[in-house]
Amino acid sequence: MTSTPLTALPPPVLAAASPADWRAAFRAGDRRPTSGLAAGHTQANLVCLPRDCAFDLLLFAQRNPKPCPLLEVTEPGSWRSVLAPGADLRTDLPGYRVWQNGLLVATPREVVDLWRNDLVSFLIGCSFSFETLLSEAGIPLRHVEQDVTVPMYVTNRECVPAGRFSGPLVVSMRPIPAASVAAATAITALMPAVHGAPVHVGAPEELGIADLGKPDFGKPVEFADGDVPVFWACGVTSQTAVMRAAPSFAITHEPGHMFLTDARDLEYRIA
Amino acid sequence: MTSTPLTALPPPVLAAASPADWRAAFRAGDRRPTSGLAAGHTQANLVCLPRDCAFDLLLFAQRNPKPCPLLEVTEPGSWRSVLAPGADLRTDLPGYRVWQNGLLVATPREVVDLWRNDLVSFLIGCSFSFETLLSEAGIPLRHVEQDVTVPMYVTNRECVPAGRFSGPLVVSMRPIPAASVAAATAITALMPAVHGAPVHVGAPEELGIADLGKPDFGKPVEFADGDVPVFWACGVTSQTAVMRAAPSFAITHEPGHMFLTDARDLEYRIA
Repeated sequence: MTSTPLTALPPPVLAAASPADWRAAFRAGDRRPTSGLAAGHTQANLVCLPRDCAFDLLLFAQRNPKPCPLLEVTEPGSWRSVLAPGADLRTDLPGYRVWQNGLLVATPREVVDLWRNDLVSFLIGCSFSFETLLSEAGIPLRHVEQDVTVPMYVTNRECVPAGRFSGPLVVSMRPIPAASVAAATAITALMPAVHGAPVHVGAPEELGIADLGKPDFGKPVEFADGDVPVFWACGVTSQTAVMRAAPSFAITHEPGHMFLTDARDLEYRIA
Repeated sequence: MTSTPLTALPPPVLAAASPADWRAAFRAGDRRPTSGLAAGHTQANLVCLPRDCAFDLLLFAQRNPKPCPLLEVTEPGSWRSVLAPGADLRTDLPGYRVWQNGLLVATPREVVDLWRNDLVSFLIGCSFSFETLLSEAGIPLRHVEQDVTVPMYVTNRECVPAGRFSGPLVVSMRPIPAASVAAATAITALMPAVHGAPVHVGAPEELGIADLGKPDFGKPVEFADGDVPVFWACGVTSQTAVMRAAPSFAITHEPGHMFLTDARDLEYRIA
């Protein structure tokens, strides 16, 4: 990579692009959602907060590990990641959001000039990791088949608060064939670092979800006959908590535009 | 409990004592190691640190989850635990250690008068939890058969440092019959909150352990024919890191004298 832009490459070459190739492309200005890129490699949500808020978010994540699985937390000021040696967290994602006092103030391509020496970066696991394994196990992913963003819902369950952070549990929902619910549960249970087992199977009304056709984030997805709605804790939970807390300053990834690490999803499968 | 001291009770009644019974007994002055008490209920290591060190320890635990599995982290100043409603972390353990600048300065029965409003309490998982399940699966525990404290060794592996905390990985070692190594691995892999799968099987010299007969903590244990040494990450790792960092003030449990929670070991089995 580097001389030829990835956008100019034919599909077979794109499919073979490594996480480092993609990070270099983003650094050079490419901007696209990361779903399906460098399949098998772990993607992460990014939240950067001033050091004086970081303890509370670390505690929030410890108390709510299913929605907020921490893959890495950096030293204050560092833009390096052990999950992607050589990467720069300030430039290597395809899009960023910048927040001041809870308000979105910019959506820049990179954040080098906005970086601060007191920023602690949280890399948070993402359901893309377990979707790869579900798919490889032959379990259909309806939102992928229908080419829509997975539907997400704000539930009636409150997270365990920590300091200034609190908020509802947000879940993603995937219609799973009834005969595959057990397998989907078992596969994801073995990946606690990327949301783990479902938090709920069937009965959306118990979660306070009145209409699966009206997700709070993402798009509605069509059920096939015999599909059951299966709910997993979702990384949007932590972003909701951060936005609600309205810290003086924060940087996050642009939704759907994740950090591509060199880690492999299978490394997060514990057995 | 409360009127009759637990020490005066006959063995069948002792075996039936709940975690709350034991906590009340300790609060009333009973002092004994907790191994085997209220079997099936989760026991925890305790580390209490001033708020200004707590972020670094939380980060150390996030980066070293196998030796430092956090079951709970309290709000600063709180002596309550969600894992044992009604319990008082200042009085309900059978023994405490008090540290100043890395030096042991007292081993009191309770720490009510020493408590500070800035203390954050870390409850850290313990291998007693998985030993119960190993035993129920018919896997022999040689140190239990021989009635000695499990042997522990300082290894040549460094933990990932975080702020002021760093230090070597400490492991516990159990001789496991060769035919049971796979089962012992699978059972503990499913309990990542209480140290998880072994970090090493066989070949102690690879961990820098020259002589299994000379543990750094605990007692040597005899092998039966066909036993293989199996090594799990050990909670002593975090205590070693805390002592090496020499914070201005710290309270820990007396080794072997753990906090008995109301949680059940099986709650930490993820599948």
